[in-house]
Amino acid sequence: MNTGVERPRWAEIIAVGSELLIPPRADTNSLYLTARLSDIGIEVRAKTVVGDNRADLESVLRDALARTGIVVLSGGLGPTDDDLTRDAIAAVLESPMAEDPALLEQIRERFARRGARMPAVNRRQALVPRGGVAIENPLGTAPGLWIEHGDGLIVALPGPPNELMPMFDRIVDERLAPRAGPDRVYRRVIKTSGRTESEVEEAAFPIYGAWVTEPLPVLTTILASPGQVELHLSVRSASADIADARLCDAVLQIVAVLGPDVFSTDGRTLEEVVGDAVRARGWFLAVAESCTGGLVSARLTDVPGSSDYVSLNAVTYSNEAKVSWLGVPGDLVRDHGAVSEPVALAMANGIRQRAGADIGVGVTGIAGPTGGTPAKPVGTTVIAVTTATTHIVRTFRFPSTRVRNRQFAAQLALDLTRRLLAGVEAGPAFVVASSRAGEPT
Amino acid sequence: MNTGVERPRWAEIIAVGSELLIPPRADTNSLYLTARLSDIGIEVRAKTVVGDNRADLESVLRDALARTGIVVLSGGLGPTDDDLTRDAIAAVLESPMAEDPALLEQIRERFARRGARMPAVNRRQALVPRGGVAIENPLGTAPGLWIEHGDGLIVALPGPPNELMPMFDRIVDERLAPRAGPDRVYRRVIKTSGRTESEVEEAAFPIYGAWVTEPLPVLTTILASPGQVELHLSVRSASADIADARLCDAVLQIVAVLGPDVFSTDGRTLEEVVGDAVRARGWFLAVAESCTGGLVSARLTDVPGSSDYVSLNAVTYSNEAKVSWLGVPGDLVRDHGAVSEPVALAMANGIRQRAGADIGVGVTGIAGPTGGTPAKPVGTTVIAVTTATTHIVRTFRFPSTRVRNRQFAAQLALDLTRRLLAGVEAGPAFVVASSRAGEPT
Repeated sequence: MNTGVERPRWAEIIAVGSELLIPPRADTNSLYLTARLSDIGIEVRAKTVVGDNRADLESVLRDALARTGIVVLSGGLGPTDDDLTRDAIAAVLESPMAEDPALLEQIRERFARRGARMPAVNRRQALVPRGGVAIENPLGTAPGLWIEHGDGLIVALPGPPNELMPMFDRIVDERLAPRAGPDRVYRRVIKTSGRTESEVEEAAFPIYGAWVTEPLPVLTTILASPGQVELHLSVRSASADIADARLCDAVLQIVAVLGPDVFSTDGRTLEEVVGDAVRARGWFLAVAESCTGGLVSARLTDVPGSSDYVSLNAVTYSNEAKVSWLGVPGDLVRDHGAVSEPVALAMANGIRQRAGADIGVGVTGIAGPTGGTPAKPVGTTVIAVTTATTHIVRTFRFPSTRVRNRQFAAQLALDLTRRLLAGVEAGPAFVVASSRAGEPT
Repeated sequence: MNTGVERPRWAEIIAVGSELLIPPRADTNSLYLTARLSDIGIEVRAKTVVGDNRADLESVLRDALARTGIVVLSGGLGPTDDDLTRDAIAAVLESPMAEDPALLEQIRERFARRGARMPAVNRRQALVPRGGVAIENPLGTAPGLWIEHGDGLIVALPGPPNELMPMFDRIVDERLAPRAGPDRVYRRVIKTSGRTESEVEEAAFPIYGAWVTEPLPVLTTILASPGQVELHLSVRSASADIADARLCDAVLQIVAVLGPDVFSTDGRTLEEVVGDAVRARGWFLAVAESCTGGLVSARLTDVPGSSDYVSLNAVTYSNEAKVSWLGVPGDLVRDHGAVSEPVALAMANGIRQRAGADIGVGVTGIAGPTGGTPAKPVGTTVIAVTTATTHIVRTFRFPSTRVRNRQFAAQLALDLTRRLLAGVEAGPAFVVASSRAGEPT
């Protein structure tokens, strides 16, 4: 059903290993393989994980070869009886295997370099199905296999990601890209905060929905995590310049409708954007966290070089700690409750002053599962960002579990910090109350 | 090639959706489906992700049905032309579809309850292949499908995880478990800290390697994350009592060789184990972090109820903050450097005293990528845990990137805290220097 012309642009991926089917495990190699294939314009049409069962593996491989021109397998190339990939390929292609003397020598040498004798069992790893060639594995004993068969191609790689990834990089650059034709896929990621996924979709779909039918189509996919919605744009083109121009224009169209809710179009994370903005002013930033318990600080300091602008943060989990460490007036906590705009502001001002910082962030909320009240249900979170001359404070109500409410709160704390630094208004998502930015505190 | 007797114990999973093949995305439903099937003794032999392409989907479904008795599909049940699962099933089974009037009424009512008219396009969702019945979806418009065909079974579920999971739970309990026979799979997870994956394997394989050939085999798989190695044990049995007894015995055998490096056999996380031990003494715990930047605090406060034993933590990223906020003597930093055992101890003692806590933790290190020296390369991390009467301090050298070195450090900080509370020696992994526990500081 596939035309011969198109087959080289389509691939399937097969991950081999019973351990990959045990519940907590997942096949992560295929994400890497898919991304690298996609870079060179090869589309993955199906991915399969199959256990160490010879009949199943042969069946899956046969079916994949019938559908697409390129099949990439990972795993099952070790020296033991459980390692069935070589045998399954030989059986499916009806190509007997032969020992490759040069390959055998390489494997022997690899053991010799570590002062060891090659175990007899490893001799199997020098077997190559007829028509195939070995792919060198600089980091392990299991060589890969490259087997062309009619207009089809099988690439088999060892399972350990640290061996598979560099081997596949070389294959993509040296062997697959030339076969794949001149097209490459170019990407841009637009990261937003302050709108829900459906709000982003509602605003942006009228734009990106029209792109797919244009002469140079731009494909868009939406990815959401707590407080962050990303638009992943891609263009297939033989010209980097044309693709870049198309993507630049596409990004501008999206930014025009999403405005300052877009915080990154160059791959930077929110914590990098915030850090760069603080550093650009020669400022220091200090955070006082309650419900997020250190998440905001951990994200800020995840960035290499963050010691340029982070000196001290505090996790003031109890009311006493808020009072004694941040100087939050005890009567504010008593009169308004720990989760209130006056307390969040006092936390932000307190940590800013005590850390000798230029910008202070205060986060206080009810992450759950307990601690909610009718007036302040679980998910209620107040975030304040202050400098010596201005501030933002917002009350949010996040809709989720403890873990996700904390992630929402950390994300929105970083986002409000970004907005104060950029001088832009806060997005509406999840906001239930807000005093006006810049009001005297 | 499969016998009729075994077929009901084997399943395959097919996730349908082109968006699942776009690089950053992954199919997460299959992890849930695999775990629930495994609970009732049904083994998943292969999992496939396939795009919204009718021919590919039919081919993948046909092949899966040829291999196994149960095929669970997710996605592709929506109302649009892209939603091909219904049609593909009908084509593969050669069963024409018919509109289910009761189902159509349910879908209409669902829209009516929200004050909306059912769009004409949604009428497709009332189509059911002959021999199939609809599975109610209380949380969305797309009903599921249950189709028995010869000795085979197809279950099709909508893609959104929040709809799929409760639907599948009911199916497993009410319909699949009775078909699956009396066996269930019982599990236990042994969590360890303080040894590398290969150290755990070397110590424990002589034990668990023998289990697979016993009359009631116990299967074991190892999962590693920075600083934590888990052994996942499972037993298949028709008797919960027999399985429990076997697993209890298996856990005891492993604990006997891994000793106090095991921190959990009941599912609790390391931060829960630490929190429970602190709470059991009526104590408070306080943490002063440098290189981990808030990760230890974030993990501790991830536990609901952690406000019982966490009041105040500090992220003292700069030397000034260590001196002014924790009372670390300036000459200690000058003489030994910020990443040193005297400074880590002074941080732990400082936060303990200033927070009025009973146990203090100090973490200081060089996460990378810069900041290393020949004497203290990237990855060097010192962790101290102190009480009024005792302490542990250890110098580690973690082998990885900034992100993972920070995860290692947070894990080992919690692990050393656990060990001090339990009065057990620290594990050897990654330790490059240690003064003796309890030495006067």
